[in-house]
Amino acid sequence: MSMDMNPASSFAQLKRIESSKVFQTVVIAIIILSALTIGAKTYDLPPLVEQSLSVMDNAITLFFLVEILFRFAACPLKRRFLMDGWNLFDTIVVIGSLIPLDNSEAVLLGRLLRVFRVLRLVSVVPELRFLINSLLKAIPRMGYIALLMFIIFYIYAAMGSMFFASVDEVLWGDVAIAMLTLFRVATFEDWTDVMYATMEDYPMSWLYYLTFIFLTAFVFLNMMIGAILEVMSEEQNAKQAQKAHDERDEIARQLQAVQEQLQELTKQVSEKR
Amino acid sequence: MSMDMNPASSFAQLKRIESSKVFQTVVIAIIILSALTIGAKTYDLPPLVEQSLSVMDNAITLFFLVEILFRFAACPLKRRFLMDGWNLFDTIVVIGSLIPLDNSEAVLLGRLLRVFRVLRLVSVVPELRFLINSLLKAIPRMGYIALLMFIIFYIYAAMGSMFFASVDEVLWGDVAIAMLTLFRVATFEDWTDVMYATMEDYPMSWLYYLTFIFLTAFVFLNMMIGAILEVMSEEQNAKQAQKAHDERDEIARQLQAVQEQLQELTKQVSEKR
Amino acid sequence: MSMDMNPASSFAQLKRIESSKVFQTVVIAIIILSALTIGAKTYDLPPLVEQSLSVMDNAITLFFLVEILFRFAACPLKRRFLMDGWNLFDTIVVIGSLIPLDNSEAVLLGRLLRVFRVLRLVSVVPELRFLINSLLKAIPRMGYIALLMFIIFYIYAAMGSMFFASVDEVLWGDVAIAMLTLFRVATFEDWTDVMYATMEDYPMSWLYYLTFIFLTAFVFLNMMIGAILEVMSEEQNAKQAQKAHDERDEIARQLQAVQEQLQELTKQVSEKR
Amino acid sequence: MSMDMNPASSFAQLKRIESSKVFQTVVIAIIILSALTIGAKTYDLPPLVEQSLSVMDNAITLFFLVEILFRFAACPLKRRFLMDGWNLFDTIVVIGSLIPLDNSEAVLLGRLLRVFRVLRLVSVVPELRFLINSLLKAIPRMGYIALLMFIIFYIYAAMGSMFFASVDEVLWGDVAIAMLTLFRVATFEDWTDVMYATMEDYPMSWLYYLTFIFLTAFVFLNMMIGAILEVMSEEQNAKQAQKAHDERDEIARQLQAVQEQLQELTKQVSEKR
Repeated sequence: MSMDMNPASSFAQLKRIESSKVFQTVVIAIIILSALTIGAKTYDLPPLVEQSLSVMDNAITLFFLVEILFRFAACPLKRRFLMDGWNLFDTIVVIGSLIPLDNSEAVLLGRLLRVFRVLRLVSVVPELRFLINSLLKAIPRMGYIALLMFIIFYIYAAMGSMFFASVDEVLWGDVAIAMLTLFRVATFEDWTDVMYATMEDYPMSWLYYLTFIFLTAFVFLNMMIGAILEVMSEEQNAKQAQKAHDERDEIARQLQAVQEQLQELTKQVSEKR
Repeated sequence: MSMDMNPASSFAQLKRIESSKVFQTVVIAIIILSALTIGAKTYDLPPLVEQSLSVMDNAITLFFLVEILFRFAACPLKRRFLMDGWNLFDTIVVIGSLIPLDNSEAVLLGRLLRVFRVLRLVSVVPELRFLINSLLKAIPRMGYIALLMFIIFYIYAAMGSMFFASVDEVLWGDVAIAMLTLFRVATFEDWTDVMYATMEDYPMSWLYYLTFIFLTAFVFLNMMIGAILEVMSEEQNAKQAQKAHDERDEIARQLQAVQEQLQELTKQVSEKR
Repeated sequence: MSMDMNPASSFAQLKRIESSKVFQTVVIAIIILSALTIGAKTYDLPPLVEQSLSVMDNAITLFFLVEILFRFAACPLKRRFLMDGWNLFDTIVVIGSLIPLDNSEAVLLGRLLRVFRVLRLVSVVPELRFLINSLLKAIPRMGYIALLMFIIFYIYAAMGSMFFASVDEVLWGDVAIAMLTLFRVATFEDWTDVMYATMEDYPMSWLYYLTFIFLTAFVFLNMMIGAILEVMSEEQNAKQAQKAHDERDEIARQLQAVQEQLQELTKQVSEKR
Repeated sequence: MSMDMNPASSFAQLKRIESSKVFQTVVIAIIILSALTIGAKTYDLPPLVEQSLSVMDNAITLFFLVEILFRFAACPLKRRFLMDGWNLFDTIVVIGSLIPLDNSEAVLLGRLLRVFRVLRLVSVVPELRFLINSLLKAIPRMGYIALLMFIIFYIYAAMGSMFFASVDEVLWGDVAIAMLTLFRVATFEDWTDVMYATMEDYPMSWLYYLTFIFLTAFVFLNMMIGAILEVMSEEQNAKQAQKAHDERDEIARQLQAVQEQLQELTKQVSEKR
């Protein structure tokens, strides 16, 4: 292959390779292999296996580096490459793996970064990418509900640590710990133990827990119903608008024809006068 | 600025300031600051910080007082100011904070009232206000279901304290305690411990717990389904009625035109006779 | 009032009294009073209060007897009185309360029967009656799903008591106890304790629990979705059919008018020939 | 009955017997009997009962063998008999029961196989068969969500066993055990015990649990909403398409008639020229 071929066809060729089934499958296979080596390292392994895992890890890092450079080369607009969130994520994970790590603290950090390589599966499989995008779209919809929930938690936590800090310093010591304890109550995890402890000093404190549980459950339920309805009505609106348009269109066209026929007829009748 | 300016323009000016972005942002910032000082007080702090928190607390109280007086001044109909639920709530919280507190009992009450200042966030941010209003609207819909739930709880609690009071006085002592225990069972919180204890004396008592769990879960599930359906059909009805109307309108208008054309034609033909 | 008045007007008068607001309110008040006395008896009370509760209990029993006789008298078709499920239920509860009880065993039974008087609230308040009727209608819809659930539970319980009976006789002793244990697992109540115990003897038994949890959760989820859809589509069908009919009707009527106009015109034109 | 009767009528006759109400009822009764004997064996029984259960078990095995041979005989296309999943399942269960078992290990396996006979109820009752088929159809829809969930679990498990293995070897020893622990956390089962233990060494580890719970709950919630919507829109699409078509059809037919009338009229008018 000559080196002076025209760049456009070169891009097209790289693009073709990048989007080929074989290339995709190889990348996915390497990511899964990477995930397996990460999992394998959590087991106690003989030194030989451990060493070969290190070698394999370096090979995977190299492969990911080559792959990202290849994808960068196949990208026609170099400047926009990092504008795409998925490309940015991939680049950070790959570059992060390249940094040499010496002391034990950093080794843990390096291993942590390698864990996120598994997330590259999401960036490579289009269906998962689509799924994540649609999940991200659902977040703002829940924003104000989340804020309301936070306010409820904060108020109850402030009240809780005010009254119950003397009962159990570990559970109600300050407002942050109290919020964690309330999250525990909201998941129903041994919440009666928490309640029975405070009821010894404050016999009416069951009211605190019950109102909290009802409030959070009620807000959560309404959030869920709201989310279902919003997504549904969005979808339906788009669909029904299309349908209604199609329907109206056909009948309107027929009526148009009737009107034209009538005009023609009127002209004929008036001409005959 | 002259003092004898006309009151209408003065109201308009106050209103403009009140609804300005800057004013809103300042109020929200102060509320968040107030929430943070409430949270901060739950930690063990050096005396100096504690003192400055007290000063800040007084400053916030003053600010809230000024703000509510300002809002009152900006309100054209003074009499209706307290008719609005949100204004009433704000006023009570602010006035409550003004009452001087001496003994330790009252200090706790004063701190409790300050906690509710966080709720002012809801009254100030319009999106949260809208959310709360729509949640309040959902309450009556659940009224009779809640009554039915209460009846189920009451019957089971009466039966429970009748039979199981001898087994565990703490859990089944009287009908009120038994209802709390049943709420615990309904949240699945260590419910088997409660059941295994009573099954030692009454081997068939698992029937009591299973029927109770099935009944409450069944009623709850139906309530949820009912709520989803009701909100949904309400929304759809409004939308579809509108849509159907729009659709029908357009075709009806076209048909009207056809009928007019025909009338015109008929007149022409009959004139020619 | 003369005794020889005609029976039809007498029925009408009784019916009028029965369905009067005052009568309904009195009955509801007595039922709530009855519920309160039942609840009160679960507390330790001084002998005087206990005695007055007994007197009140007898008075309530008498009132209910009179009320049911009155309702029977107001019923035009005496034979059909007990055909109505709610009347049958009321009659059984009232007659059950009349049976004199001597020994302590029977006293408990008598008190149990009095508990069910609270359920009379459901039979008297029309909204609750409607709610219960609609809940009862939801049961058959869930019939085969419940059967499928039972089969899943039975198979897992049979397997569980086969393998794990040697591990823990109390939890897996026989197929009935194992089903109760599995219900506990399905509610996530300390299920890991159950799992960790069996994993000591059968290290792979986590597979048993995970498949069970996934199966039941999956079937339950689908049941819920199915129930929502069924109720929804039923409601929508009825509504949309009506709406579509209304819409079509109006346009069809207009088109009919157009056709008639055309016929008239055609007649005129042909007459002129 | 002569042996040389024509095979087609023989098939029809067998088919008629197979699909007869009586035959179906007998098979269902035997399956339920089989389920009961399996359940009975989990209890401690006197030797006599145990022996008669063994005899009954053999009789049931024989009956099932005869039944499946009969169904095979009634099947017109012998080759396709095992192509049907339900037939294949029935055959495997019946043949599996026939294998003679000597040692105790195999006895357990034989009993296990007999448990799956209960599942034959699903293959015989058409409503359950339909239910299972519709549940199976729901699986692919959840495929990518399940993959995403697995990725989330895997990443958190890898991180968990990296950091927390030193805290508790039993819960976080390797990536597989950590995934089981995370499943426990996802079901809220004593998750705070797990958290409090790791928070002693890593005070910020509550962040790990809270993000995990929020992520899984969020993905799960969206999955549920997605499933409801998908099923619903599928159903509605089919229905609405039909309805829209019906509606349009009727009006279109009327318009067609109008156009024909107009054509006729135009012809008349032009003829008169």
